[in-house]
Amino acid sequence: MRKPAVILLSGGLDSAVTLAISRAEGFEPHALSFEYGQRHRVELEAAGRVAASLSVSEHRVARIDLRVFGGSALTDDIAVPQERSIDEMARDVPITYVPARNTIFLSYALAWAEVLHASDIFIGVNAVDYSGYPDCRPAFLRAFEALAAVGTKAGDGGSRFKIHAPLIECSKADIVRKGIGLGVDFALTHSCYDPLPDRTACGRCDSCQLRLKGFAEAGFEDPISYATR
Amino acid sequence: MRKPAVILLSGGLDSAVTLAISRAEGFEPHALSFEYGQRHRVELEAAGRVAASLSVSEHRVARIDLRVFGGSALTDDIAVPQERSIDEMARDVPITYVPARNTIFLSYALAWAEVLHASDIFIGVNAVDYSGYPDCRPAFLRAFEALAAVGTKAGDGGSRFKIHAPLIECSKADIVRKGIGLGVDFALTHSCYDPLPDRTACGRCDSCQLRLKGFAEAGFEDPISYATR
Repeated sequence: MRKPAVILLSGGLDSAVTLAISRAEGFEPHALSFEYGQRHRVELEAAGRVAASLSVSEHRVARIDLRVFGGSALTDDIAVPQERSIDEMARDVPITYVPARNTIFLSYALAWAEVLHASDIFIGVNAVDYSGYPDCRPAFLRAFEALAAVGTKAGDGGSRFKIHAPLIECSKADIVRKGIGLGVDFALTHSCYDPLPDRTACGRCDSCQLRLKGFAEAGFEDPISYATR
Repeated sequence: MRKPAVILLSGGLDSAVTLAISRAEGFEPHALSFEYGQRHRVELEAAGRVAASLSVSEHRVARIDLRVFGGSALTDDIAVPQERSIDEMARDVPITYVPARNTIFLSYALAWAEVLHASDIFIGVNAVDYSGYPDCRPAFLRAFEALAAVGTKAGDGGSRFKIHAPLIECSKADIVRKGIGLGVDFALTHSCYDPLPDRTACGRCDSCQLRLKGFAEAGFEDPISYATR
């Protein structure tokens, strides 16, 4: 009998591998995605394909309003940066940072976990390639577990809720290798922040650059197509 | 020059008094309400009236989906309890508890605070009358501050974000007295979980009972009308 777990699934590479890991670890995955006014809505279609290919128990999409505040290139009318070097990405919190996004996403995952009587939440955050995002760090995840312990009926002040971030110390190349090992079909995933109208990845935004670098370093070919390559 | 603050405003009695307190303490209030599939949607109209009467800088309503998970009488097709004694309310986490609701609400407040460059968030939670709600306790608020410190660009691991819960140790009678002292027009507020089609408060749900008891103990008349009294 598998234990239920809630998996945050964006439709990108990292969350697809995280979902595959949750299954490999013996959990019964309940996948959760968000329609949050993101520019790259095509990733939600990818999330649906990935969820189906990895036979989740359920895939729910919560419609939430993050545009109400603005402040990020992913939800606002601010240009997505292109052709930044990996060093530049590592140095600054990028404009694609959505304020408190992972806090909001984990709060929803926690609500669903409570309803499902699940204790485990998986999130595909990564502190290596996204070192500029404060809510992708281990200290943030531990703080969220502490919050879940005191803030829920089920937590009851104890250590019931666990936030699993199996990729947190992985490079993108490690993630690609893990996914290949677990049979993840990367052709189903979508990572680009700024896709063309025909959904082709731009190849130039931070997300495309990190993905391409990860495949190159892992020695595999990325099965998706890019506008400029 | 007033400092900006985000105030969670439901349209009920507690959040109206909290908003008035934030102004009295010298903040410039930015009020945030949620349309979350609640049964008692009439409270959003109350929130708009209260915000206008206390001259907030802005009032935003975020549309978020809490029905996606179900699990509460406030968002699901589960009957709202009626005529429970105050002792029964104090003993159990009620079915009107929405899983992780305050975690989600505070996450949004935090997102807006980051965009506004605000450090202060006000929430009208109360650990006396809502002792059954885990996310109305001081330990929860301190855990959220710790999360905000590590999970945001602005927090940067420090103590920048403060969650103010000025009513946390107050009885409902105290809250009524504070509100009267600050000139809150309680006729504009709405508390009932289960209003009649004409928006009259039922007088029998937990929220109506606590409100009526608070006014009675404070020695004031509640200016709203009730279906059964």
